[in-house]
Amino acid sequence: MSSSGVKIAYFGPRGTFTEQAALALAGAVPGEPELVPAATVPLTLAAVRGGAAVAGCVPVENSVEGAVTATMDALAVDEPLVAIAEAVLPVRFTVLVRPGLAAADVRTVASHPHAIAQVQGWLATHLPAAEQVAATSTAGAAVAVVAGTFDAAVTAPVAAAHFPLDVLAEGVADVDDAATRFLLLTRPGRLPAPTGADRTSIVVVAAAERTGVLAEMLTELALRGINLTRIESRPQKGRLGEYRFYLDFDGHIGEERVGDALAALHRRGQQLRFLGSYPKAERALPAAVGADPAGNTDADYTAANAWLTNARLGTLA
Amino acid sequence: MSSSGVKIAYFGPRGTFTEQAALALAGAVPGEPELVPAATVPLTLAAVRGGAAVAGCVPVENSVEGAVTATMDALAVDEPLVAIAEAVLPVRFTVLVRPGLAAADVRTVASHPHAIAQVQGWLATHLPAAEQVAATSTAGAAVAVVAGTFDAAVTAPVAAAHFPLDVLAEGVADVDDAATRFLLLTRPGRLPAPTGADRTSIVVVAAAERTGVLAEMLTELALRGINLTRIESRPQKGRLGEYRFYLDFDGHIGEERVGDALAALHRRGQQLRFLGSYPKAERALPAAVGADPAGNTDADYTAANAWLTNARLGTLA
Amino acid sequence: MSSSGVKIAYFGPRGTFTEQAALALAGAVPGEPELVPAATVPLTLAAVRGGAAVAGCVPVENSVEGAVTATMDALAVDEPLVAIAEAVLPVRFTVLVRPGLAAADVRTVASHPHAIAQVQGWLATHLPAAEQVAATSTAGAAVAVVAGTFDAAVTAPVAAAHFPLDVLAEGVADVDDAATRFLLLTRPGRLPAPTGADRTSIVVVAAAERTGVLAEMLTELALRGINLTRIESRPQKGRLGEYRFYLDFDGHIGEERVGDALAALHRRGQQLRFLGSYPKAERALPAAVGADPAGNTDADYTAANAWLTNARLGTLA
Amino acid sequence: MSSSGVKIAYFGPRGTFTEQAALALAGAVPGEPELVPAATVPLTLAAVRGGAAVAGCVPVENSVEGAVTATMDALAVDEPLVAIAEAVLPVRFTVLVRPGLAAADVRTVASHPHAIAQVQGWLATHLPAAEQVAATSTAGAAVAVVAGTFDAAVTAPVAAAHFPLDVLAEGVADVDDAATRFLLLTRPGRLPAPTGADRTSIVVVAAAERTGVLAEMLTELALRGINLTRIESRPQKGRLGEYRFYLDFDGHIGEERVGDALAALHRRGQQLRFLGSYPKAERALPAAVGADPAGNTDADYTAANAWLTNARLGTLA
Repeated sequence: MSSSGVKIAYFGPRGTFTEQAALALAGAVPGEPELVPAATVPLTLAAVRGGAAVAGCVPVENSVEGAVTATMDALAVDEPLVAIAEAVLPVRFTVLVRPGLAAADVRTVASHPHAIAQVQGWLATHLPAAEQVAATSTAGAAVAVVAGTFDAAVTAPVAAAHFPLDVLAEGVADVDDAATRFLLLTRPGRLPAPTGADRTSIVVVAAAERTGVLAEMLTELALRGINLTRIESRPQKGRLGEYRFYLDFDGHIGEERVGDALAALHRRGQQLRFLGSYPKAERALPAAVGADPAGNTDADYTAANAWLTNARLGTLA
Repeated sequence: MSSSGVKIAYFGPRGTFTEQAALALAGAVPGEPELVPAATVPLTLAAVRGGAAVAGCVPVENSVEGAVTATMDALAVDEPLVAIAEAVLPVRFTVLVRPGLAAADVRTVASHPHAIAQVQGWLATHLPAAEQVAATSTAGAAVAVVAGTFDAAVTAPVAAAHFPLDVLAEGVADVDDAATRFLLLTRPGRLPAPTGADRTSIVVVAAAERTGVLAEMLTELALRGINLTRIESRPQKGRLGEYRFYLDFDGHIGEERVGDALAALHRRGQQLRFLGSYPKAERALPAAVGADPAGNTDADYTAANAWLTNARLGTLA
Repeated sequence: MSSSGVKIAYFGPRGTFTEQAALALAGAVPGEPELVPAATVPLTLAAVRGGAAVAGCVPVENSVEGAVTATMDALAVDEPLVAIAEAVLPVRFTVLVRPGLAAADVRTVASHPHAIAQVQGWLATHLPAAEQVAATSTAGAAVAVVAGTFDAAVTAPVAAAHFPLDVLAEGVADVDDAATRFLLLTRPGRLPAPTGADRTSIVVVAAAERTGVLAEMLTELALRGINLTRIESRPQKGRLGEYRFYLDFDGHIGEERVGDALAALHRRGQQLRFLGSYPKAERALPAAVGADPAGNTDADYTAANAWLTNARLGTLA
Repeated sequence: MSSSGVKIAYFGPRGTFTEQAALALAGAVPGEPELVPAATVPLTLAAVRGGAAVAGCVPVENSVEGAVTATMDALAVDEPLVAIAEAVLPVRFTVLVRPGLAAADVRTVASHPHAIAQVQGWLATHLPAAEQVAATSTAGAAVAVVAGTFDAAVTAPVAAAHFPLDVLAEGVADVDDAATRFLLLTRPGRLPAPTGADRTSIVVVAAAERTGVLAEMLTELALRGINLTRIESRPQKGRLGEYRFYLDFDGHIGEERVGDALAALHRRGQQLRFLGSYPKAERALPAAVGADPAGNTDADYTAANAWLTNARLGTLA
């Protein structure tokens, strides 16, 4: 346990990619936070909402653990949480086996179905005869190997340090550049300062079921030169046909153009939830910088507001 | 001369539709203003800019005197002026003749070419043999009849009171519902209060020659539910291919959605000139009220701005 | 086995919601098709692509089995498949127990994590002391109960017919109106005829990483009055930041406005995959019918094309 | 008279800028056309509609003769006419005086008011004491000087060849780069072939008075990368508040993207009148070539249509 008593919850169990991400993001929280696994994404967030943890780490995109929609749904309701950091981890898979077991002896290989799907090439070459078995997580598969239920598990690299198993192979993913994105979430408070390469996340519910309503919302962003980086729609309240939209875009709420766009979306939606402005994991400048057709800077927004004030007062030069 | 010494300039001469409009709009200026004709639209505006008159009345749309583009060009440059009132006059034409002259004796009929074009039906029936002669204004035609140069003049109704001529016929326009729009302009100062049925006029120069730039500007209005009522493009600085856009739309700069849209256009344009927010001549509610797809009221704008402030401070409920 | 030898593959195992959907949709395939479970979504689709089955049934939205992203990814690559029918099933859960077991004796309850999450209310009231255990599918949980590993399973109603277990409770979902959507997919061929209440699905990759590119694509739909019903973005080729967009919208490719919109998206995208036009499960008229701002019918499209031909030939009336 | 009997009508009288333009454009008509002045723009167009002339030349933009709105209105109604060529003439003014008269002797100077407005600098320097008098055209002013009514006329350069007057000064315009644009119009028939630098002109009436309708029409152009070069709104049928829009944009109706856009505007409008596709006077490539955000060529349109056909037939590869 850390000396500070500060805790970061993460969607466990130990040995998954999410633990790896939580390790990478722990520096965003002062003190020497202890990492504490939670059984599900909702329980991870509940730990933060309830105060048991100061922050929570969950996957949001392309997780090999399949937890993405759970994250989206959990963030859209209950007490608001905001992201203060993100991590993008390369998806690398390790194959763990019971100590001493050779490849030729592996008859069953377990993992989360998403993970198994991403290592088919290696399995076909090296374990062509092994039965493929689905587990509830990559770490759960390792647990089952330790228990003797299966012979091998496809896991995150970090699992090798948690389980008394041998590493049969590393880097076995079919695609080299796959990646998973994670967020570190806290209760609302002081926002991370803008860095010039930030991302903003929101959930918005359109005010009306009306043709073109999403096109209008995205046009609000486009007209301000804001680059959308991700969009998801999720049925609202368990009903198909009524949707929440999850939007990620470049920029920080502290920037004028982003703030102005958020105000426009707030007016346009019946519900807008701010999920945070935080440094992008890839610290490169956003690809679309300068892509604002009008090329507006914060100074242009300030000048426009000053102009408006003067025009209303009749004091235009 | 009025006792107050207050003067309203108008694009004359006496006896034109513009004098009629100036009479109708004089109540917007305190005191008992004297109406003073100016020879051209630029001279009318110069009288206001220089202080010789407190206000100036000029035609802006569909004038039978053909002065519209002159007005547009004169408003876009030099010291800013803003409209405080508008008038829409039905286009009614009167035929004046030398005293005692019968229709059968009329061999020449003079007027501004736009006026002549609008009474072809009546002329074909009642003065089929008369030669049609172009004059520089409808009142100028009346002057020429007084001088004996021509036999008849097609004029504004008000001309009957200014010239020692007989009224041969009234209401001779081919189309009953033609109309001309006039503005009463002053130096910038206190704006007319919003009435709920106002119009705002601007001149804007796009910041860049870029495909779609006007579509973007109009989309800024449409996304805020603002109804465009008129648009003109005029070559800028005497060069074809570089344009100023003249826009009229429903609403008052004091309204949140209009102010927000103007700020957006200000950012987007390299030049934005505010030409005033003033009561619409037709006092009906704008046809498109409620047409905002998002249905936003001023309160929605205020709420969105308050929300943004709280989101930036991390104090969202 | 059916007499016809015609097979419909579905994402199994037997006893899941997907089997229920496959039963409901089997009528869309001539003959008396036999339903054959496949272990994963990709294997289900592979059976269709390879000809082992004439059609395949997979979940696409809000599945309690968590298979949605797998479906999306599997449809975007390899040989094209098109949907010919969809089913929307209410999400109803049944609790199965070993024969003779009373609620008071249940110490472990297993199911897919998404299913467990949706019955928390019932579990808190009726099985408050039971340990909740994750399984790889709802039917997998039933298998484990049969094997004696766990005491109870939360399953689809259909599972009661497949497993030698007792029904402890039915209709235990927290939310009454939850639903899951499934597609029945075939190799491209004759399309289902338009019914007036159809849906079209596509996958599109934007031609360029450019601010506003998705706003433009959705505006192409909105300008033609086409109601978007769902959108997802999925990272392409395993890389974050490059996305495929999955779009569902009202209408049939055989309709002029839908065909015109698809051609526009085809030009705009670097890849457009047509996933089918098929009757909507809810046979009501689309909510947004008549929402085309221009109100265009097929006849308007035909008339516009005829006009264009004449204008090009110089034969306009 | 020409040997061919072919006639081009132009908005006269002789000696105006429009005659200059007609001379410049005569080569677009086979034979050796004779140029015939008509008294007004409507009469010029009537000569073409009635067959008395094969083509008519009229000003459409920034005319010193003030005839632009007359042209717009005359083109929007009655039998359709289409432009086959345009000319842009630099606005150069010449000052003509009675033979032998010196500048010091000029007491009155006449011209069309628009022309007078454009030579104020020269007049202030060289004829500061002369009274400025309005005439109905620049050539009309020259006629009045010949008749002895006035001392000097500000005219088009071509007027020097028509009237027995002396040239007092040439090139007296305040702004060097002013220009006027003219169209050569014929009855519909074979269109000029695309040259790669063409312009298309239309008149369109929106199908409904609805907020955002013009924004939508311009977005149809922008989404296809079509560069709008001019827009005017004119009250329809003499009523303010109902508008026709006059649009000029780059491209030729024979191009796929232009044809596709025209079909979209045709569907969207209650009236669309095609005014021709013709080579731009400035033969440079359009400034905005390549500005189509999607970068579509004719081949992309053809490919999209072929794709649509195959998708509808179920014959996609």
